[in-house]
Amino acid sequence: MEVENRYVAVRHHVEGSPSEEDFEVKAATVRWTPGSGEVLVRNLYVSVDPYQLNRMKRHSASHHSVEVIVPGERISAYGAGKVVASACAEYKEGDVVVGVLAWEDYTMFRASPTTLIGKVDDASSGFPLSYHIGVLGTSGMTAYGGFYEVCKPQRGEKVFLSAASGSVGSLVGQFAKLAGTQAKVDLLKDKLGFDDAFNYKEEPDLKAALKKRFPDGIDIYFENVGGEMLEAVLANMNAYGRVAVCGAIAEYAGQGRRAAPDLLEVIYKRITLRGFFAFDFLTKFQEYVETIGGLITEGKIQVVEDISDGLDSVPSAFIALFRGENVGKKLVKLA
Amino acid sequence: MEVENRYVAVRHHVEGSPSEEDFEVKAATVRWTPGSGEVLVRNLYVSVDPYQLNRMKRHSASHHSVEVIVPGERISAYGAGKVVASACAEYKEGDVVVGVLAWEDYTMFRASPTTLIGKVDDASSGFPLSYHIGVLGTSGMTAYGGFYEVCKPQRGEKVFLSAASGSVGSLVGQFAKLAGTQAKVDLLKDKLGFDDAFNYKEEPDLKAALKKRFPDGIDIYFENVGGEMLEAVLANMNAYGRVAVCGAIAEYAGQGRRAAPDLLEVIYKRITLRGFFAFDFLTKFQEYVETIGGLITEGKIQVVEDISDGLDSVPSAFIALFRGENVGKKLVKLA
Repeated sequence: MEVENRYVAVRHHVEGSPSEEDFEVKAATVRWTPGSGEVLVRNLYVSVDPYQLNRMKRHSASHHSVEVIVPGERISAYGAGKVVASACAEYKEGDVVVGVLAWEDYTMFRASPTTLIGKVDDASSGFPLSYHIGVLGTSGMTAYGGFYEVCKPQRGEKVFLSAASGSVGSLVGQFAKLAGTQAKVDLLKDKLGFDDAFNYKEEPDLKAALKKRFPDGIDIYFENVGGEMLEAVLANMNAYGRVAVCGAIAEYAGQGRRAAPDLLEVIYKRITLRGFFAFDFLTKFQEYVETIGGLITEGKIQVVEDISDGLDSVPSAFIALFRGENVGKKLVKLA
Repeated sequence: MEVENRYVAVRHHVEGSPSEEDFEVKAATVRWTPGSGEVLVRNLYVSVDPYQLNRMKRHSASHHSVEVIVPGERISAYGAGKVVASACAEYKEGDVVVGVLAWEDYTMFRASPTTLIGKVDDASSGFPLSYHIGVLGTSGMTAYGGFYEVCKPQRGEKVFLSAASGSVGSLVGQFAKLAGTQAKVDLLKDKLGFDDAFNYKEEPDLKAALKKRFPDGIDIYFENVGGEMLEAVLANMNAYGRVAVCGAIAEYAGQGRRAAPDLLEVIYKRITLRGFFAFDFLTKFQEYVETIGGLITEGKIQVVEDISDGLDSVPSAFIALFRGENVGKKLVKLA
């Protein structure tokens, strides 16, 4: 079986803010043969995530223990698809799968113990497929693991999150019930039930903005922005505060300066900062899907998605992330 | 009873590197009366610690939850002394005490549940009194709590520490058996049994210097320096690395720039940075004194002290800390 596969690639390493010219859509024939052990998937949705930008930079491959994106080659990404041909007993034609696929129409893989591609099981199949990439996928797992496992919230603690209207932030804020554009602020407060929200890009003094909203200080910070935001939060943090370091979007494109946190704040307030990764919590995945799936069914968790259409829209969807244009989980629907 | 008390004060807030002109020795009469409830102590040794510089800065009192040093007034400091008069049942004349005293000849205090002044008990009184300020005092407790409680070392892990020849570092390195001047490097390797040591002020490329010495990466970093050192360590750290943030002497005097750690290193390597304070481990103090006291008696822990003589030498002793001139615990002997 042969299919014509279109895929998105970068033309060169990307060091600053990404632009449309950095990307190209290429095509190649994919050949699947019975007995090859391989599984061919027609991708239906692919995720577009800020961290991908770091993989596009020209740093040494060993620098961050993540797979570097090579110019001209396929770009792996979380996604969902349907098996169209399988030479592997574990998968059969028609199975719906979710996991690490790529920004392309068809992904072919070979099952192994480290394959991060699973079948969507019956229990959770009542939800739209897109949910399995966002709220019931890595974004949700990042929010859940980061909040409950890393932050270990106690009743009454004050929680602040940056990039709060993003795929992860919009969930953490709902977990905590507890904030760029006024439309986002309204969404967070009105639809998602956050206590307060503000547009950090319009605040001339972040420290003062936080002081005003957290007169009793911040206990937990879910970090997605970096730069000045981290410094301002530390200045407003309480003793024994915890910072879950999830992302630093303001630093990815080199638009803002790097955070230079005041180590004296860290020492005197006994603050803990901890980096983490959704995949650290894989053992909790089933628990997560059941818990959150239930809350979604009951209407207690709102799912916010921002879906573009077609493989050609992947570059513009990706670029929009760094302009703060997305609200909720950014996905591209392929078929 | 009246005594003429001489004390060291700052003439004004100190923002940069300290110099002799920033200090003055003042005098005042201290009047103790029977029935006052107060205890009068003749101070014998006082500690000189880098963190004191932060207390001398003109920042708001609430900034760091530590007591601000007011120009012209007494400067609290860890020390040891002998009770010369007591109107409090818990203390009697001749008792040897250790705890938060001040850079002065006599300290008068009133016992309260929060008083951090204790009597040197019999079990540990076989050691020189100076040990109770350093290795058996806050420096030791910082090293012990920071290494065992914060870093949680596992067998085989690679440990790196900065300001390794200081009061705390010289102990952590011995705990881990595992490094400013060549003399210090020799001391660390030859006398204290460290595996390797280097003079970071002479290394043009800290990242490369660490890479060379830790080809398999660093698992634990005991941070006392800040600035570029922290950045270089993070770049050389292994996954799940831990940074115990104890101090940042390179940042105190504003000589170097602040550390701007790469948050991507923190995320992708799941690094934890945690600030702490010796007093966080007060409940472990007795356990610590017994354990370390035993190791000192057996000759398994070497105690390195750097003792100046007389109250007038407090300013020069303090300034020397920021020039990297001290080796081991810096103390001033008063009487």
